[in-house]
Amino acid sequence: MKFVRFQQGAATRYGVLEGENIRIVEGDIFGQWAMGNQVVKPESVKLLAPCAPSKAVCIGLNYHGHAKEMKSELPKQPLMFLKPSSALTHPGGEVEYPAISQNLHFEAELAIVIGKEARKVPAAAARDYILGYTCANDVTARDIQKGDGQWTRGKSFDTFLPLGPCIATDVDPADIDIKLFLNGEVKQASNTGDLIFKVEELVAFASQVMTLYPGDVILTGTPAGVGPMQVGDTVAVELSGIGRLENTIVKG
Amino acid sequence: MKFVRFQQGAATRYGVLEGENIRIVEGDIFGQWAMGNQVVKPESVKLLAPCAPSKAVCIGLNYHGHAKEMKSELPKQPLMFLKPSSALTHPGGEVEYPAISQNLHFEAELAIVIGKEARKVPAAAARDYILGYTCANDVTARDIQKGDGQWTRGKSFDTFLPLGPCIATDVDPADIDIKLFLNGEVKQASNTGDLIFKVEELVAFASQVMTLYPGDVILTGTPAGVGPMQVGDTVAVELSGIGRLENTIVKG
Repeated sequence: MKFVRFQQGAATRYGVLEGENIRIVEGDIFGQWAMGNQVVKPESVKLLAPCAPSKAVCIGLNYHGHAKEMKSELPKQPLMFLKPSSALTHPGGEVEYPAISQNLHFEAELAIVIGKEARKVPAAAARDYILGYTCANDVTARDIQKGDGQWTRGKSFDTFLPLGPCIATDVDPADIDIKLFLNGEVKQASNTGDLIFKVEELVAFASQVMTLYPGDVILTGTPAGVGPMQVGDTVAVELSGIGRLENTIVKG
Repeated sequence: MKFVRFQQGAATRYGVLEGENIRIVEGDIFGQWAMGNQVVKPESVKLLAPCAPSKAVCIGLNYHGHAKEMKSELPKQPLMFLKPSSALTHPGGEVEYPAISQNLHFEAELAIVIGKEARKVPAAAARDYILGYTCANDVTARDIQKGDGQWTRGKSFDTFLPLGPCIATDVDPADIDIKLFLNGEVKQASNTGDLIFKVEELVAFASQVMTLYPGDVILTGTPAGVGPMQVGDTVAVELSGIGRLENTIVKG
């Protein structure tokens, strides 16, 4: 199943993709819900990021290929940082190139969407706390990230967390093709089989530290091939079985 | 004026300290509000952290004295990291010593409470976006902070963000005595006059990166004297003109 979130007039609603249509869902997809009777055309509504996370837990250096490209040793455990909720961007939305950066990078990622409150969850039980998966772009001002040493500022600008287009519930997170297109050209191409720490381990690891709430996301790291974007570029993250998240770069 | 937030039965309410009493406030202290007619005794309610931030923006190495103690060069600009909302702890609440840490530290801090949405605010206008100030303890698992290199995990455990007891609106943020007591003994003692970057600069700096929402907080850094806490300890942050934030350490 693929959940989408969208704006219809003044209301924010959830729906389920049904062929070319969206069937509106009644209730809360993180709690009690049921299929509704109403169907809308995607082009008649504004698609939103499929959840509104209170926080995005992000993992650095989690693909063998990217660790090699960054000349980093393989991490012994996941390396964690945070993006704030204020960075959220919708599918089709604009990513702002900060005036204070000269090196804005894309990072295609698989994002885990938490389905219910998770605290100190063992890896073996992690799947019960995952609602599904979506595409993310861990947009990074690489010069600020490197200059600060701490990664937070370079990764936390408004619009630096594009998420979407849907939450896919029935994919195998260990075998998803992940691709990034810059103006239509493939820049990253890998598979989640190359992940150093698997999604279950990441839910366990993060929830040992902090309570994860329904709608919170874990960005699982980016594969090899990260690189710069310019104002005017179109950037797209495509994950097999999930969909395509496309954004444009504008002057911030 | 000193705003407090508290639980009264099932309701969460705001009030204003009035001598020994709390006068209940009607409305939203971040929007329209008015003094109510009802007065309650502090001991009859459960005091909460005075706001529920969507994020805590934290600043490292922002006192001349602490930079010296950590043998760090003076930063050329503020060094930023985040604590998640899930780390919030109330006055009198318990701070959990994580099982995976062997070196839990206190860090007394002045916290700025944002009063209205702030995006790219110049320092000269920053005061308009500040509702007031409260006490914070930037609880840190020092071993995890140092081991990771990235500070996020070691500072983001549940209960690692004690805030309170009130939001003081009429203090001069450039001249507040800041003290930390561990089991009654003074461990940190300084004044916000020793801050490298002042509160107005911090609001400007943070809001260049990310939108700050009403109730968000900026932790302004800790003075010299940080040190370890043990299970069973009582830790208190005291700021002149604001109040005292006391917490106990328990096994996590």
